[in-house]
Amino acid sequence: MPEFIEISSKDNPLIKFVSHLQSSAKQRKEQGLFVLEGLRICSDAYENNIKFDKLIVSKNALNKHNETITQFANNSKVSYILKEELFKKISDTNTPQGIIAVAQIPEKKDKISTNGRYIALENLADPSNLGAIARTAEALGVDGIIISTDSCDPYSPKCLRSSMGTLLRMPLYITDDIVDFIALNNLNSYACVVDRDADSIATQNFCDGSVLLIGNEANGLSDKAKNMAKHRITIKMSGKAESLNAAAAAAIAMWEMVKDR
Amino acid sequence: MPEFIEISSKDNPLIKFVSHLQSSAKQRKEQGLFVLEGLRICSDAYENNIKFDKLIVSKNALNKHNETITQFANNSKVSYILKEELFKKISDTNTPQGIIAVAQIPEKKDKISTNGRYIALENLADPSNLGAIARTAEALGVDGIIISTDSCDPYSPKCLRSSMGTLLRMPLYITDDIVDFIALNNLNSYACVVDRDADSIATQNFCDGSVLLIGNEANGLSDKAKNMAKHRITIKMSGKAESLNAAAAAAIAMWEMVKDR
Repeated sequence: MPEFIEISSKDNPLIKFVSHLQSSAKQRKEQGLFVLEGLRICSDAYENNIKFDKLIVSKNALNKHNETITQFANNSKVSYILKEELFKKISDTNTPQGIIAVAQIPEKKDKISTNGRYIALENLADPSNLGAIARTAEALGVDGIIISTDSCDPYSPKCLRSSMGTLLRMPLYITDDIVDFIALNNLNSYACVVDRDADSIATQNFCDGSVLLIGNEANGLSDKAKNMAKHRITIKMSGKAESLNAAAAAAIAMWEMVKDR
Repeated sequence: MPEFIEISSKDNPLIKFVSHLQSSAKQRKEQGLFVLEGLRICSDAYENNIKFDKLIVSKNALNKHNETITQFANNSKVSYILKEELFKKISDTNTPQGIIAVAQIPEKKDKISTNGRYIALENLADPSNLGAIARTAEALGVDGIIISTDSCDPYSPKCLRSSMGTLLRMPLYITDDIVDFIALNNLNSYACVVDRDADSIATQNFCDGSVLLIGNEANGLSDKAKNMAKHRITIKMSGKAESLNAAAAAAIAMWEMVKDR
C-alpha cells in the first residue's frame, strides 16, 4: 500500500498550487504540470502512461475506489489524502469525486510518422472547439494533432473536459511554429480557407503523409501558413451563413482526408 | 412613433410572464410564444417575418437604437418601456442590451418541397447540438430541419443562442412523428446509424428529395425510424473513440448529402 500524506489545513500551500495550475496556462507551462480531476480522466491519463507528480484524494474516494487509487498512487511521486470539506476547496467541480492528479505534461515530440494523416491547428482560440476537434479526429482515426503554442492550452481543464479525455489519448505535437514543423516533417499540406476561388476539398486525392491546416476562428490561417501550404482548399458553401464553425469545418475536412484510406 | 407603455413596478405580471416563457418549454408550447433577447437576434426574427406579441425595451436602448426599435414596435402588438434596473430583472444575461421581444412561434408546416434536401432530428436532447447542427445546415445550404417534438425545444434561449439566429432563418418542420412526416412527404430517407454493417455514407448517391435521420445522442434512432428508412448508412470510423458526437456526425452526413449538388 503506497503512503498517503494527510493534509488537514486549508492553508497548506498545495491547495493554492493546484488552483494556480488549474487557472493559469503560464503556470502550467512553467511547471510542466497540469491538473486532472475525476476517476475517468485520471484513468485515461494513467492508461496512456502520463506520469503523476501528485495524487490528491479524499478519504471517501480512497474507500470507494481503493484498487484504482492504489494504482494511481503507485504512478505518482507523492500522494495526499484529505477530508471531504477540504477537498471541495481544491476541486474545480460542484460535486467532486474526490480524485485529483497533478500530472506531467508529456515531452514535446519533433518527429512524426511521414505516412500519417494529421490535423494542424494554428492559433485556435476556443477550448470547446479544440476539444470537439480532438474527439472527431480520434473517432475518424486521424493520426495526431499539431497545435501551435498560440492556440488555447490543450491541458486546460476546459479543453480536457470538452475533449472527453481524447487529448490524453491522441498524439499531440505542440510547436511554436506549425509551418516549420510541417516543413521539417515533409508533410503534404492543405490549408483550409474560406475563399470561393480555392479548390474544392471534395475533389482532392489525399494521400499518406498529409496534413490539414485550420486557422483561428475569426481570422483564419496566417499568411505564412497559407503561403507555405502546397494546396489551398475550401468547403464549398451554398448557404446564407457566413461560414462554418471551426469544429464543423474541421469535421468535414478530416472526413475528406481519411475516408478513402 | 408607436406607443410604449411604461412599467415601473417589479411586481408587474409581465415580468413573471417573460421569465416563465424563458424557463419553461411547456409554457412556450401552451402560449405559442417564445422570448428573444438582444438586438441581433430580434433583427434576425424581424427580417424573417416572425411576429412580435410584446416588445420590451429599456429607456437607454430606445435612445440608442431608436430607428430599429421603432421598426420592432410597429411589428409588435404592444410595446413596453422600463428603467434599466427593472430591465435587469427580466433579462437572461448579465449585461443586458435592453431589448426583449416576446415572439410568436411560427405555425407548423406540414408540406415541404419534394426536391429539397433535409435533415431530420429525432429525440435530440442537447440544445448546443441542435444549435450547432442548424448552423452547419444553413452554411451548407440544407433546405430545412425536421425536428421531432420530443427533441429539445428550438425556441429555448439556449438553442437560439447556440444557433446564432439560424433557427429563426431556416425553415423548421416540427412534428410529433418524423416517420409519418417523412412518409407523407415522400422523401428518400437515410437513417444514420452506428453499425459497422450498414452501408458507408461515402458511397451513396444522394438525389433531390432526400432526408438524413439523426437520432438521440445516447440511444440513436428509434426502431420505427430505422425500419422506415429506405437506406441505413454509417460514417465508417477507424479510431478508438466509441462514436462521433452528434454535431460532428451531422456535419459530415449533411456534407455528403449536399456536396455534389
